[in-house]
Amino acid sequence: MARARVIVVGGGFGGLNLARGLKRAPVDVTLIDQTNHHLFQPLLYQVATAGLSLPEIAVPIRAVFDKQPNVRTLYGEVTGVDLETRQVRVANGSVLPYDYLVLAAGARTNYYGHDAWSAHSFGLKTADDAIALRERILRNFELAEATDDLEKRRVLLTSVVIGGGPTGVELAGAISELSRRVLLRDFRTLKPDMVRVVLVERAPRVLTAFDERLSRSAQRQLEELGVELQLARSVTGIDATGVTIDGTHVLAGTVAWTSGVAPVPLAARIPAKRDGSQRLIVGPDCALPEHPEVFVIGDMAAFVPDGAEQALPGLAPVAIQQGRHVARLIDREARARGNGEVDDKATNRPTRHAFHYVDKGIMATVGRSRAVMQFKGLRWSGFFAWLAWLVVHIYFLVGFRTRFLVILEWAWVYLRNASGSRIISEPWTGDRPVTQNRMKDTPAATTWTQNNNGRPS
Amino acid sequence: MARARVIVVGGGFGGLNLARGLKRAPVDVTLIDQTNHHLFQPLLYQVATAGLSLPEIAVPIRAVFDKQPNVRTLYGEVTGVDLETRQVRVANGSVLPYDYLVLAAGARTNYYGHDAWSAHSFGLKTADDAIALRERILRNFELAEATDDLEKRRVLLTSVVIGGGPTGVELAGAISELSRRVLLRDFRTLKPDMVRVVLVERAPRVLTAFDERLSRSAQRQLEELGVELQLARSVTGIDATGVTIDGTHVLAGTVAWTSGVAPVPLAARIPAKRDGSQRLIVGPDCALPEHPEVFVIGDMAAFVPDGAEQALPGLAPVAIQQGRHVARLIDREARARGNGEVDDKATNRPTRHAFHYVDKGIMATVGRSRAVMQFKGLRWSGFFAWLAWLVVHIYFLVGFRTRFLVILEWAWVYLRNASGSRIISEPWTGDRPVTQNRMKDTPAATTWTQNNNGRPS
Repeated sequence: MARARVIVVGGGFGGLNLARGLKRAPVDVTLIDQTNHHLFQPLLYQVATAGLSLPEIAVPIRAVFDKQPNVRTLYGEVTGVDLETRQVRVANGSVLPYDYLVLAAGARTNYYGHDAWSAHSFGLKTADDAIALRERILRNFELAEATDDLEKRRVLLTSVVIGGGPTGVELAGAISELSRRVLLRDFRTLKPDMVRVVLVERAPRVLTAFDERLSRSAQRQLEELGVELQLARSVTGIDATGVTIDGTHVLAGTVAWTSGVAPVPLAARIPAKRDGSQRLIVGPDCALPEHPEVFVIGDMAAFVPDGAEQALPGLAPVAIQQGRHVARLIDREARARGNGEVDDKATNRPTRHAFHYVDKGIMATVGRSRAVMQFKGLRWSGFFAWLAWLVVHIYFLVGFRTRFLVILEWAWVYLRNASGSRIISEPWTGDRPVTQNRMKDTPAATTWTQNNNGRPS
Repeated sequence: MARARVIVVGGGFGGLNLARGLKRAPVDVTLIDQTNHHLFQPLLYQVATAGLSLPEIAVPIRAVFDKQPNVRTLYGEVTGVDLETRQVRVANGSVLPYDYLVLAAGARTNYYGHDAWSAHSFGLKTADDAIALRERILRNFELAEATDDLEKRRVLLTSVVIGGGPTGVELAGAISELSRRVLLRDFRTLKPDMVRVVLVERAPRVLTAFDERLSRSAQRQLEELGVELQLARSVTGIDATGVTIDGTHVLAGTVAWTSGVAPVPLAARIPAKRDGSQRLIVGPDCALPEHPEVFVIGDMAAFVPDGAEQALPGLAPVAIQQGRHVARLIDREARARGNGEVDDKATNRPTRHAFHYVDKGIMATVGRSRAVMQFKGLRWSGFFAWLAWLVVHIYFLVGFRTRFLVILEWAWVYLRNASGSRIISEPWTGDRPVTQNRMKDTPAATTWTQNNNGRPS
């Protein structure tokens, strides 16, 4: 009897914890990811604001499974799944058969049909998003310092963050702190009153998932950091010059979009039921109703707990717990096969335990010594919430090395008010508006290459 | 009487030390650089081989002059100099007048007329060079793991380093160590005999600047690391498939070019005498013969010591010492002006001290516990030369933070044999040949953006 073949799509919180959970299971795991690293997304906003460097929150997926021989890592893109023949198609042409498939590819930035806006604003889901945003912010300060045109300066130093969820709140707070605490010291001709950070939220308050008192506290903390709140306002347009908020156009040098995510396109290519936000609907065992051998976890899945109205939110703890739960299910069934209790194709669904999410609470940091958290009855805000936030994030970071380095960097930032990664790796591109993604920035790249190789421009 | 205006072009070893040397001088310094950071180039090869991350060897130039109010930093490109009217033109259109001009913009990769080769090989002079090379090496391992075609694997795992100077030797050794020590552990289906690292040098030995015994020792150490030496061989062609060495074509997944540098294009735009390798010829005071107010230091300058045949080599110590020397000259003359001893335009050249280079010796590391160094009568190779190399490089790193982090990373690599920065920030681009510079990699960027934004591909 052959060992069960498990294919995991995605090396995020869900996929990583699932594969780890199968450490002792009699299965062969193939983990496929479009990047070569597991990214600790909760801290991505700190890479975008020069607080941390990418390798400090990213670990090579291969390194994670160094000592787990039953996991094989594949760096590539899954282009399709055939549920009937139980096969996964990979972009390089190979076709991989599976006994169990776990879809854990997560979500990407969603512009709700306004795809044109993506050309003029930064998402914050991938490593490149964060690096591109960081380079834009740093470059705009350089350009502002280089010009004498006061109006132009104000525009370059204006950042608009769209979306008042945790990511938006953390990003707006961090941009404001980076600008006022760190950069204004480096740039002598720039003054605090030239810096403007705007946070736009459709709802009447930020952090709508939190208790209303915490929202108000977060808003107060944001305003203390100099963030301008525009609540109960909607964005009606984004172009190369800035953002239109309820009809009024705000000229801005940097625009970040954190107000929506949707499952990666792969989800739409799976012939199964989806909810309103395109997430794949799963049963109590996290598997597709018609396909007990296909599990969907994390941001790709719509899991509605017993008796609940809404599906679980797209949080790291949900993905982690689902990953561990599904690992246990697969482990049990794989062993049952081993003992010949069931034949190779059977999945013995009736005996599967239902997944129960254990609420670990929610937290968001606003800035240095500032955060809000809510756990069962508890409502914390300010310094202690911030300490709790630090501990939790260090704890969940993958790998000793990254934990160690991040603690160091944070101590450094805290003590010296200087963030370490203020490096623009992309060379000078002139003071024309820089494109949103460095990798789309070919004209710049070309000009510069020519300068450097001395070919006629 | 106005304070003298000093314009420094370039924030490398020369420019940085010059500006620091003017800390107490009655002058206003404007330091112009095309990047926002001072790059510690001697360790750039470690960024290219995932040993260090960029922010660990780069410091924002502004941060360096945080506490030196007489230095103003400008992020931009110098497009021209008018020696007669004493003005510098910057790309953003502004024109800056100077009393003293210091040209310290350094060198760039030189293909000696074979500019087409640059499209198929990596230089190693800039931050982007190093990142692009690192991503190529890491991706080629991923692609090799993903294919079953053994021949294709061998090609992907073949690296050719052209140029047997310190950079070439260090890079070849580091690629071989990264491949054999770190990556082969991560990639289970790849075997040592599939990895091939070739070092090509036109001369009959590597490190021609060193004593012949040290060259032989370095060659032995390289071979111990599994580097294949092709000495007294010349490259006759480089294309997308590999390198042609004396007529034989070697298929290679990665090609690095370290065998030539030339001054940045700006040098050619200065109306003054140049030597065979396009460096600007300067007098004993490091200034242009016809323009005592214009100094040229570091890789841009051809400084021939009294009685010597050859100009000083392009080494960090030369640039550092020249920077400090010129700072002293300017300081003295600026004070003389202050006391009204001389009028504003005079430079009082006859009284200037001539620059004398104090030879600090030369060293090159080959790999872990392997290096060669030569200082006056001393000839060291092996472990102790390597220790000396470590100490010297830590010492010359700019900034406490970077020193501290680099020591940590090195300790980590040494103890764990795992290098920390094995992150491919650029997403999956399929197994077609990846272009040499990530920033030219638009198709990849586009494909991927589409995948991520769910637009039809």
